[in-house]
Amino acid sequence: MYLTQALHRWASATLAGVATACGERVRTFAETRERVSRLAGGLRRIGVAHEDRVGILSLNSDRYIESLFAIPWADGVLNPVNIRWSPTEIAYSLEDSQTRVLIVDDVFAQAVPAVQAIYPGLRTVIHAGDGPTPDFAISYEELITESEPTGDACRSGDDLAGIFYTGGTTGAPKGVMLTHANLVSAALGGLASGSFFRHGVTPRSLHVAPVFHLADFAFFLMTSIGGGANIAVPMFDPENVLELIGTQSVTDTLLVPTMIQMLADHPKVSAYDMSSLRTIVYGASPISPALLGRAQNAWPTVDFVQAYGMTELAALATILPAADHSDGTRQRSAGLMAPISEVRIADGDGTNVPHGVVGEIWVRGPQVMRGYWHKPQETTEALQNGWMRTGDAGYLDEDGYLYIVDRLKDMIITGGENVYSSEVENALAQHKAVAACAVIGLPDERWGERVHAVIVRAPHSSVTAAELQVHTRNLIAGYKVPRSVSFVDALPISGAGKILKRSLRDTIENSSRS
Amino acid sequence: MYLTQALHRWASATLAGVATACGERVRTFAETRERVSRLAGGLRRIGVAHEDRVGILSLNSDRYIESLFAIPWADGVLNPVNIRWSPTEIAYSLEDSQTRVLIVDDVFAQAVPAVQAIYPGLRTVIHAGDGPTPDFAISYEELITESEPTGDACRSGDDLAGIFYTGGTTGAPKGVMLTHANLVSAALGGLASGSFFRHGVTPRSLHVAPVFHLADFAFFLMTSIGGGANIAVPMFDPENVLELIGTQSVTDTLLVPTMIQMLADHPKVSAYDMSSLRTIVYGASPISPALLGRAQNAWPTVDFVQAYGMTELAALATILPAADHSDGTRQRSAGLMAPISEVRIADGDGTNVPHGVVGEIWVRGPQVMRGYWHKPQETTEALQNGWMRTGDAGYLDEDGYLYIVDRLKDMIITGGENVYSSEVENALAQHKAVAACAVIGLPDERWGERVHAVIVRAPHSSVTAAELQVHTRNLIAGYKVPRSVSFVDALPISGAGKILKRSLRDTIENSSRS
Repeated sequence: MYLTQALHRWASATLAGVATACGERVRTFAETRERVSRLAGGLRRIGVAHEDRVGILSLNSDRYIESLFAIPWADGVLNPVNIRWSPTEIAYSLEDSQTRVLIVDDVFAQAVPAVQAIYPGLRTVIHAGDGPTPDFAISYEELITESEPTGDACRSGDDLAGIFYTGGTTGAPKGVMLTHANLVSAALGGLASGSFFRHGVTPRSLHVAPVFHLADFAFFLMTSIGGGANIAVPMFDPENVLELIGTQSVTDTLLVPTMIQMLADHPKVSAYDMSSLRTIVYGASPISPALLGRAQNAWPTVDFVQAYGMTELAALATILPAADHSDGTRQRSAGLMAPISEVRIADGDGTNVPHGVVGEIWVRGPQVMRGYWHKPQETTEALQNGWMRTGDAGYLDEDGYLYIVDRLKDMIITGGENVYSSEVENALAQHKAVAACAVIGLPDERWGERVHAVIVRAPHSSVTAAELQVHTRNLIAGYKVPRSVSFVDALPISGAGKILKRSLRDTIENSSRS
Repeated sequence: MYLTQALHRWASATLAGVATACGERVRTFAETRERVSRLAGGLRRIGVAHEDRVGILSLNSDRYIESLFAIPWADGVLNPVNIRWSPTEIAYSLEDSQTRVLIVDDVFAQAVPAVQAIYPGLRTVIHAGDGPTPDFAISYEELITESEPTGDACRSGDDLAGIFYTGGTTGAPKGVMLTHANLVSAALGGLASGSFFRHGVTPRSLHVAPVFHLADFAFFLMTSIGGGANIAVPMFDPENVLELIGTQSVTDTLLVPTMIQMLADHPKVSAYDMSSLRTIVYGASPISPALLGRAQNAWPTVDFVQAYGMTELAALATILPAADHSDGTRQRSAGLMAPISEVRIADGDGTNVPHGVVGEIWVRGPQVMRGYWHKPQETTEALQNGWMRTGDAGYLDEDGYLYIVDRLKDMIITGGENVYSSEVENALAQHKAVAACAVIGLPDERWGERVHAVIVRAPHSSVTAAELQVHTRNLIAGYKVPRSVSFVDALPISGAGKILKRSLRDTIENSSRS
């Protein structure tokens, strides 16, 4: 199993099949194979050798997709860098992984001097942009035109494919080592579920979420394996996305719930032709029933599919099929074990608990990471006999559906009672005036922690804290009802689309102190 | 990746999910896991150790399915024996693979003394039948009840999963070594194509073709990964199969074209309820347009899907999706490369030939066998840089569809011209009076070989050789038209459902000499 197989297959198979599209540029698989083999030749010429890490710091583009094939083709290891990071964080991840070659686009070329000031080990910068190539960089397009094609190193199986730094919400970033088998088996497992893409339709996938994040990376790989076109969008802009779906005949896209909300609630949502769209895959967090309802109203023929996973699992553990989105209970679950996964729920000793009982979610399968780069202790803590301890809490129902209760570390302990934020968030989200919400624990003299809700109001709503407290009291136990509420315009989200609860907590604590 | 993962997954996930059904016996995944772990404990108790081969010589049954899980669970290696073989051939394959433990059913218990007379190394026989256990055997059910459950050895990845003897139509049987990764990736690749099973329907798969053959083995594995029920039928009987589809709510089945013909042409075909049936997978040979038409008339809501592969490829190289069966041209192809396959067409030097040009079919992917058991030279000839040389001739069209022209060794050379039997067979099959046919080369003083057709007439037809010659002359070149024709009641088929052309050739040559 190897990342580049899909490119080999479709370039050999079809003359006309489209591999990438970005703005006006459209390239077939055969053209892409030619460019990738030359780019790989160029990487080798500038000194990329066996297992050297090559970073990519760029908005989504067709060149990003080409680089994802070219780096392993050249015998290198991918390091897709989080575009939301500061120069300090970027330099940390490059230095930690000893990445000496970095591909940047026009936007991120500007960050290079600041990064190199911190990490001088970054010796070569390749500029993959449309603007002029900066002095400190070499040109991506020239590297392609001036290099001879090279044969694919055919890195495969247990060979290291990439180091993916977790944009986790707590602690220092860790480099997740994923092999070719990890990545390809996760993509095959996703496809094997039958939940992604529609049988018989060649996918045209819109990459709106950043491809450096493993959820969208997996979506890129599934699309490629399926012989589909990867359509790259540099940044999420609701109106642009609505327009592109029609003009590019997009069949599938992967979004985080926040993006779905911004599209579904957009005033011009009904003005655009979305008839080509078959499936919206979402992840990072469950979708609230109220938002799902609005999205289904907006696009009645679109399937909604949820994937649950994490970087350490090549982004895939469970899948909630489209059909289960019409079931009020199952719609709140993370779905069934993917065709490559085993999931078990364990107590603190690692012993299985019965169906219906909450415990820590453990996952096993060919997608489980090799480990954390140069972090043997964290690796030992995370991996046990092939199982990945996710750190998430949940339970399995009797039909095998996984319900995620919360990230263990996000649990709020108030007056000695455990409160899982997601339960409170689900209750809040059922109020029609709530567009988005997050529930956190804030320090409280009386209760230790108190349940606090942060709310994004729906357009034109002026709902009050008291009204929301009355609403939730009808749905959940009194001690779970938010004792305090604040209203914001938008929630801070990570590159992975997760709500940054720590940042939310810091902001609110600071503002209440000031 | 490991064979037993599907059992672990679904036994953990669901309380009620059905794993196997055989006659009146129905067992859940949880019950099956319990029986498998005890059977594995029993196998270890009777001395099965690391990588010991364990044979299975049995008609399809639920116990066959359990054994397929239990043998790797016990750290053993599978050797599913061809049930069409003579005791001499069975003894050959057991001795060649040094298989010392054999599981047999009621039918094949009778063959054991003859096999042991030739191969005394067969030290232990396990009787997995419903009748009395013979003196020379130990009871399968007692082995389960009297053994403690043992933990899964978790053989996986590149570990040897089984030795599968090719029921090839020429030469001595060769033991094809397939790893866990080979088998599981082929099954995932099949599922990932979206062509098997219907999304959202838990499969109930009817095993009519013998599961020792890798096509049905792959079908068993896909069903298990998908959480479906494997319904075992000991022998193919058309009326019984028609009845079982309704009574067992069968959703999917795998048949060879000969079986499809016997079902579609059965006088009572319309008397049975087939409303649960979604997909008929067929392989071994393409289906003639005439037969496909009759089958589609009989079951208008059923999808027909073709898979092309061979034992050395864990049975999967390409897949022809249901939708392409309505296209007269594509319907004759073997479909598109499966999501795990690369296919290339090479000339005698191994160099790629252009689209549309016939050459030898080479296949690469994670499903390619490790090699032939104890046959290094044959392995070297078959495997080159990860590619499997299939020995089949074909071409790719510009959209990537593979057309198989013939098995290279079956090509007829008549008067210096190459004739591919399949082309002649396709022409013959378009005559409505032809139920089935096979074209072979017979020795001929004038032409070297002459094209000879063996015909099974459709019911109530009395078509003559001359009429068929006129018919084919309108479709193909004169030198390809059969110079002689014989009529038979049925064609001899191998365990794999392939027409035994060598046997046909021998029979006809002998009868023409006598």
